[in-house]
Amino acid sequence: MSHYYRLVVSCPDQVGIVARVSGFIAQQGGSITEASQHSDLQTGRFFMRYEILADSLGMSVETLRSAFEPIAQEFSMQWALMDTQKRRRVILMVSRESHCLVDLLYRWQAGELDCDIAGVISNHEDMRSIAEWYRIPYHHVPVDPNNKEASFAQVQELIDNARADCIVLARYMQILPPSLCERYAGQVINIHHSFLPSFAGAKPYHQAYERGVKLIGATCHYVTEELDAGPIIEQDIHRVSHCHTPTDLVRFGRDVEKAVLARGLRWHLEDRVLIHGNKTVVFS
Amino acid sequence: MSHYYRLVVSCPDQVGIVARVSGFIAQQGGSITEASQHSDLQTGRFFMRYEILADSLGMSVETLRSAFEPIAQEFSMQWALMDTQKRRRVILMVSRESHCLVDLLYRWQAGELDCDIAGVISNHEDMRSIAEWYRIPYHHVPVDPNNKEASFAQVQELIDNARADCIVLARYMQILPPSLCERYAGQVINIHHSFLPSFAGAKPYHQAYERGVKLIGATCHYVTEELDAGPIIEQDIHRVSHCHTPTDLVRFGRDVEKAVLARGLRWHLEDRVLIHGNKTVVFS
Amino acid sequence: MSHYYRLVVSCPDQVGIVARVSGFIAQQGGSITEASQHSDLQTGRFFMRYEILADSLGMSVETLRSAFEPIAQEFSMQWALMDTQKRRRVILMVSRESHCLVDLLYRWQAGELDCDIAGVISNHEDMRSIAEWYRIPYHHVPVDPNNKEASFAQVQELIDNARADCIVLARYMQILPPSLCERYAGQVINIHHSFLPSFAGAKPYHQAYERGVKLIGATCHYVTEELDAGPIIEQDIHRVSHCHTPTDLVRFGRDVEKAVLARGLRWHLEDRVLIHGNKTVVFS
Amino acid sequence: MSHYYRLVVSCPDQVGIVARVSGFIAQQGGSITEASQHSDLQTGRFFMRYEILADSLGMSVETLRSAFEPIAQEFSMQWALMDTQKRRRVILMVSRESHCLVDLLYRWQAGELDCDIAGVISNHEDMRSIAEWYRIPYHHVPVDPNNKEASFAQVQELIDNARADCIVLARYMQILPPSLCERYAGQVINIHHSFLPSFAGAKPYHQAYERGVKLIGATCHYVTEELDAGPIIEQDIHRVSHCHTPTDLVRFGRDVEKAVLARGLRWHLEDRVLIHGNKTVVFS
Repeated sequence: MSHYYRLVVSCPDQVGIVARVSGFIAQQGGSITEASQHSDLQTGRFFMRYEILADSLGMSVETLRSAFEPIAQEFSMQWALMDTQKRRRVILMVSRESHCLVDLLYRWQAGELDCDIAGVISNHEDMRSIAEWYRIPYHHVPVDPNNKEASFAQVQELIDNARADCIVLARYMQILPPSLCERYAGQVINIHHSFLPSFAGAKPYHQAYERGVKLIGATCHYVTEELDAGPIIEQDIHRVSHCHTPTDLVRFGRDVEKAVLARGLRWHLEDRVLIHGNKTVVFS
Repeated sequence: MSHYYRLVVSCPDQVGIVARVSGFIAQQGGSITEASQHSDLQTGRFFMRYEILADSLGMSVETLRSAFEPIAQEFSMQWALMDTQKRRRVILMVSRESHCLVDLLYRWQAGELDCDIAGVISNHEDMRSIAEWYRIPYHHVPVDPNNKEASFAQVQELIDNARADCIVLARYMQILPPSLCERYAGQVINIHHSFLPSFAGAKPYHQAYERGVKLIGATCHYVTEELDAGPIIEQDIHRVSHCHTPTDLVRFGRDVEKAVLARGLRWHLEDRVLIHGNKTVVFS
Repeated sequence: MSHYYRLVVSCPDQVGIVARVSGFIAQQGGSITEASQHSDLQTGRFFMRYEILADSLGMSVETLRSAFEPIAQEFSMQWALMDTQKRRRVILMVSRESHCLVDLLYRWQAGELDCDIAGVISNHEDMRSIAEWYRIPYHHVPVDPNNKEASFAQVQELIDNARADCIVLARYMQILPPSLCERYAGQVINIHHSFLPSFAGAKPYHQAYERGVKLIGATCHYVTEELDAGPIIEQDIHRVSHCHTPTDLVRFGRDVEKAVLARGLRWHLEDRVLIHGNKTVVFS
Repeated sequence: MSHYYRLVVSCPDQVGIVARVSGFIAQQGGSITEASQHSDLQTGRFFMRYEILADSLGMSVETLRSAFEPIAQEFSMQWALMDTQKRRRVILMVSRESHCLVDLLYRWQAGELDCDIAGVISNHEDMRSIAEWYRIPYHHVPVDPNNKEASFAQVQELIDNARADCIVLARYMQILPPSLCERYAGQVINIHHSFLPSFAGAKPYHQAYERGVKLIGATCHYVTEELDAGPIIEQDIHRVSHCHTPTDLVRFGRDVEKAVLARGLRWHLEDRVLIHGNKTVVFS
């Protein structure tokens, strides 16, 4: 895999941003292999993402960061410069439904997800065997309904010890406490098994069945304090009919969930997802 | 177009229904060209639809109805026997958005919708020209916000005078009064411009934009007293991204609305849609 | 899982087939939970599939077969009566691409594929570990380009010893010899990584890239002597653009291949696929 | 509608192109509202498209063109600078199938297609009435199989007299002579009623039916001398099954054709389609 630096920027829109940034990169001899921009006309905010061949620049990511700092200040940028050689460290959290976990582990092994998997945390023991087959550390943290605080303190410790910077709720059927949502804001990705905002909360496929919808869906989103209400990264659907029982909906749904979560996570890992209020800009 | 009788049945499920019905049809020499059945395991209700070549039977639809009556009673059937030579009479209702109306008129002329269009009713004059190009009577019934009763009395009179048995709200932006919903129960089809139950009510594309969803949709459903809550016939979606403004969503949405309404109406006209509580069985 | 008998029939179309068959089932007290029919107007052939609750019949599948035989003869039926308690025995064949194999093994374990997996045969050793994690016997049968006959004799022996009645080429990159195609006609399912008939043969994603198509696809079909030309069971596509390299196409394609093969195999195992000349009737 | 200049460029890739172009635009005070780039790694060619608010520049398109010329030469660019106030002039060509023509006329009237429709040319009289309802000049040019040359000389004259710069074959069932293909290279858009490269040539839906495919499609492409082999702009598909007759395929196909042609033409009119050998870059 080639070595890139990725520059991701958001700032108030004005004339000359692209000229300034691309001029800076060109001065350093930087070869841009992928460039995306977006101007949000409603909020007047500008977003950009550059993928730059690291070798073309001949400097470390730290040096490049220092050199870019004045431009960032000039345009009041929120920005980050990532080095693809420093892979993100991901924690997968799961309860008893295995499909998303197994799918992500397979894709990771197949090279589709450019990250290290630092560990799996579960409130059950069920997934230990498959996680360990992939040589991933497995942490069983039961959640005591009468003392969730202790459990989530342990979860937080595991995340921090693993130096993880991305947490994926791969059908983890517990609600994260606000403290964790806040601590890892923009780093926790959930898959919800409905086409949000329809059927938030529990048992969405049964809600969908009761309403008699003709399409079911899944939604990958960042976790915020408000349940199932964070910025949406990706959604997809599957057609159903009167023939299908709730069990069929759950089965179709598994495939949609897997696909949507895998795409959302991949884009997140490639720094393609920029949060904009309660929405996302996705340079996919 | 060939001449068919269509038998549509729903009744409590039990052993022997298909044998009895198909035996009866076979005794009369009836050639079944299309047969659909569905057993709803949750409610224990059975649904079926047969399409029978009229010429193979050699009897009028009335005679066939009389002959079938005892079977219907035996199995406590809700049933109907339709003659495709007696086309449904459809009233189209529209406000100012033309896309659904124009699409339905074109499909009707192209032979995709097997019905007579008995007239167009609108609270505006805008669509008169295109309706009349298709030689369809156009009725302008303004809706006075302070006296809706009078307007809808006129609407009802027009429907009844036209002997219409199907009313299509092709982006008719007025809410039908409960009396009309009840009088034409199961005969009024609406297109809602969202993926219900998400974004019921007004301005769904703007609601969708605000929520930052990645797919927008449209829903074709039977109208009931409760707004946007009737049995769903068909739904579909279109992918959107951060690039798209509310105006883009409206534009994409038009295509989804047209497609979904046309499919839903066609299935209704072909007696493929059976209402089952607040859901539908669609033998498409 | 409930216990069903499945009756699958194809015969020349004529009046009274459904009446005769459903009458017969009703006489035995049989409760039909799913019924599908199709009349092919072009060829005049009739197809049907019944799913019958075994307990409602109170007789063995052999007894039922004998009782049905006269009807089958009367209507010149090709027919089969399956007992869902007798699961099909499936052999998976694979080369070095793991995605389809891993996906099928997972779905099988999750209960989505109602069959026994009798073994994995591969011309490489790569997949042994994952197959054995699922406790499936693994047979390494190298294919010597100069003596394929010997290899395929061994393959045939393995299939026969395993009493397999379904062979899935889950990205098995060898061409089966005509003798095997004939011996297991209607039992060998292949996944081809293009939207057939486009891009038959080798390296379809590269062919697709060269042609600049905007959608890539995959096709699940029965294997016949003529390469990539057998009856199609299922197809699906994925959108691509100028941004995507052949590597991206391969990656997207993996997901389409997995989905299409899994659906096709599931339908085959549930006796939903009836071969009709070089086409299929799929009661999905 | 806002007033934009659109800069579209392709050239050999090298460091500094974006910096140079965006720097130039910024110097003139130009406000870029939409920017797209693509580097083709295989051919080493670079593509870009900028949408610039005309008012922010304060100069005519001619002045801007002159000012940009040195940069274009420096980088060996193929380029164009369009003024959205100078709308393209489109000729629609049609035979007897009305769906694409009617769809395009409606979208044009609804403001979805930013162009002037300079006329409709047909080898039949059938579409005169609807074209004239939209107040579009209609030209009936019969094609004599024994003297096609004369007919196409007349077609060419009509196109040139109309000062048209875009010709849409909206189900025009005649093959354009090589001379016209060459004269209007990159300006003639065709809709082919199959998922190319499958089923090129005549009666594609019947070919698809015979092959038993499970999806049918349509392809919008630029016309070149080789039949159905030009650069593909857009494709889409519709699911079909054994239930569907060739007539059904034709009916489903009409909707796919309309959608695909409308998208392709819209992108072409917005200068989003860049031809790259026999492929396209589409900045949609």
